[in-house]
Amino acid sequence: MDMMDKIVSLCKRRGFIFPGSEIYGGLANSWDYGPLGAELKNNIKREWWKRFVHQRTDMVGIDSALIMNPKVWEASGHLKEFSDPLIECKKCHERYRDGEIEKTCLKCGNSEFTKAKQFNLMFKTFLGPVESEENVVYFRPETAQGMFVNFKNILDTARKHLPFGIAQIGKAFRNEITPGNFIFRTREFEQMEIEYFVKESEWEKHFDKWLEEMRVWLRDLGVKKFYENEIPDGERAHYSKRTIDIEYDFPFGREELYGLAYRADFDLKNHSEKSGEDLSYTDSKTGEKFIPHVIEPTWGVDRSVLVAMLEAYHEEDAPTAEKGEEEKRVVMKFPKWLSPVKVAVLPLSKKENLSKKAQEIYQDLLKDFVCEYDETQSIGKRYRRQDEIGTPYCITVDFESLEDNAVTVRDRDTMKQDRIKIEELKGYLNNKLTI
Amino acid sequence: MDMMDKIVSLCKRRGFIFPGSEIYGGLANSWDYGPLGAELKNNIKREWWKRFVHQRTDMVGIDSALIMNPKVWEASGHLKEFSDPLIECKKCHERYRDGEIEKTCLKCGNSEFTKAKQFNLMFKTFLGPVESEENVVYFRPETAQGMFVNFKNILDTARKHLPFGIAQIGKAFRNEITPGNFIFRTREFEQMEIEYFVKESEWEKHFDKWLEEMRVWLRDLGVKKFYENEIPDGERAHYSKRTIDIEYDFPFGREELYGLAYRADFDLKNHSEKSGEDLSYTDSKTGEKFIPHVIEPTWGVDRSVLVAMLEAYHEEDAPTAEKGEEEKRVVMKFPKWLSPVKVAVLPLSKKENLSKKAQEIYQDLLKDFVCEYDETQSIGKRYRRQDEIGTPYCITVDFESLEDNAVTVRDRDTMKQDRIKIEELKGYLNNKLTI
Repeated sequence: MDMMDKIVSLCKRRGFIFPGSEIYGGLANSWDYGPLGAELKNNIKREWWKRFVHQRTDMVGIDSALIMNPKVWEASGHLKEFSDPLIECKKCHERYRDGEIEKTCLKCGNSEFTKAKQFNLMFKTFLGPVESEENVVYFRPETAQGMFVNFKNILDTARKHLPFGIAQIGKAFRNEITPGNFIFRTREFEQMEIEYFVKESEWEKHFDKWLEEMRVWLRDLGVKKFYENEIPDGERAHYSKRTIDIEYDFPFGREELYGLAYRADFDLKNHSEKSGEDLSYTDSKTGEKFIPHVIEPTWGVDRSVLVAMLEAYHEEDAPTAEKGEEEKRVVMKFPKWLSPVKVAVLPLSKKENLSKKAQEIYQDLLKDFVCEYDETQSIGKRYRRQDEIGTPYCITVDFESLEDNAVTVRDRDTMKQDRIKIEELKGYLNNKLTI
Repeated sequence: MDMMDKIVSLCKRRGFIFPGSEIYGGLANSWDYGPLGAELKNNIKREWWKRFVHQRTDMVGIDSALIMNPKVWEASGHLKEFSDPLIECKKCHERYRDGEIEKTCLKCGNSEFTKAKQFNLMFKTFLGPVESEENVVYFRPETAQGMFVNFKNILDTARKHLPFGIAQIGKAFRNEITPGNFIFRTREFEQMEIEYFVKESEWEKHFDKWLEEMRVWLRDLGVKKFYENEIPDGERAHYSKRTIDIEYDFPFGREELYGLAYRADFDLKNHSEKSGEDLSYTDSKTGEKFIPHVIEPTWGVDRSVLVAMLEAYHEEDAPTAEKGEEEKRVVMKFPKWLSPVKVAVLPLSKKENLSKKAQEIYQDLLKDFVCEYDETQSIGKRYRRQDEIGTPYCITVDFESLEDNAVTVRDRDTMKQDRIKIEELKGYLNNKLTI
């Protein structure tokens, strides 16, 4: 079975990710995050926000609207240039990406096509009840413009000095002709993005710093190997002096995971000119006035989820509950901070006095940890279930627990078991989970 | 100055909320959350998720796509019924909500109009490159359908028994004819919603429980007075036996804040029929098979932000730094968990040795709290700045601090000051902030 098939299947089977609108036959590679997927994704977004907004002195976060004034996309160039070349079947008007098919329309078999035309990848809709040109608006194809457009407001209110950055997490939309590869390329997706404003003379230093931050992030996400693809001269945007695509060997090939670009003063200068608003910065010490330059690190949220799933997935032999025997286990070895469920409470049997004790422990842990309670089937099967969703710690409540007020804590990766006093359990888990 | 004007002005001035796409003249009542607004909104969403998903044994969360298969909206009735009656000027084709204007078109002065026609409030767009009827899709007008459509997937994967609920936080879109009142009615907005599945015989019990949960939530948000508007027979949806609108006295009138509805088995039954998928539930004890009934509590995120701002806003007399004198202060008395910034570190002067000490404290607190550092202007002005954004604790580092390793902690509401050892500061703040 192909690795992607394994992941997609596990995602569906265990409630990480379901096909969107599935009971109605789905919808063109759209996906819904189920209970475990929503937790996993939230963990990624929260850690990112904590690390890059809360714990830094030089960052602020924003959350801007998904529908922006169309003039933004005119200024940014998206209206004109954010497009794919398409050919159209002259008979049935089906459209294809230029070069996607050979000579014959897949729908009607005709072989006459129009010349390639540019097709804009932004989703358009109409604001208000009249479907006329003047009411056309677009769902943002990237989060970045929200930061540029708010630069002046941030400058006026956040009391930050260069270098400083604006961060945002949110949805973006691209009307891809050929979405696919599970959550890798979808028409709606989520980005975590930073626009980091610097003096021109310091761009290289900050570019390197952000590259290092991205490396550390990847390591913490559990990514062991990735590639820094330095985009050569001539292939970068004209204003960019340096761009690196962070790539990863997905089962379907090496593809972009994150990106880091030096965008010079292109965006702010452009918006200054087009909007007529002065988006320059005045150095409070030297009095020098200039348009800041910008370093832009971008993370895909959904791609982060996908790569975390791929890296975590392991099949290995593990001892069964019966001594001496082995069975295959699928275990998601997520870094602990990433695991959707941190602790599972498993009473050894359904006997009432055990359930009662186990429920007490569960209810108490619930205040501090994302927990599951499971009392059905054998303890071996329950361990396998927790392994498969990457729960770092399983707590078994057995008959001895009723006597010694202690439980067995099993480690997901080593499968070693510790006997821990119930009163020390929270401290033990807190300690283990914050490493 | 009107209360709404005060709030809108403070939001803009201090970086809570900015007009969307402002440098391009804005966009029809769209709004961007700035640094403080993003934190405030995140605090609301996180607390809600913690309370209603993580800390409960009977809930799971999901995060479903914003664009769903149009069949969902056909089944839910949104395609047919989610609309407003509009009249159109026969000359210039401007449209108005029926009854909105009297006889004369505001745009061209003409007075001939079409009869009222239904205008659908969903934002439509086209999936893929061809703008044809078969490719029309809609951005969801509510989060609820994401839960219903995933009911079977959740049932198959989450191992939950009735009663249990599915929660979701996310954007929804309504092409309102007349958006307005700041973030109260916007075309894109965020919802926190729960579909809670129960046996029919137990609906009243669970309805009451959720009503109580909503009351507790409102109290914790700082809302002192609200109204439970019991929707009478004949005004409710035909399938609903009980609906309560939670209303609030906004400066612009009494309006809906949250809603609680008993939707019977309408949604699941409907989707079962339309999709052909069996969305029934089998009781594992009795073997009884049936379509669960549903209680639906809905919270508006943006309205929660607005009501929190309105409740927190206070103007009062406060002593100035000069003894014996008073000045007006604006103070946002947010419940502490809600405050966007928890702690501000203020060195008494910019002298290097003080700055160094203060920076050490700031850098250390930053690991655990959302913090600000401010060393410009008088301490009185800095207190006022923190009051105005609702920071519960200001820490003043003075020359004595260099000797006694202690700082002054000022309480936002009482303005009383405690002298606290630096090594005990985190414990002190943790203690105060988790009350």
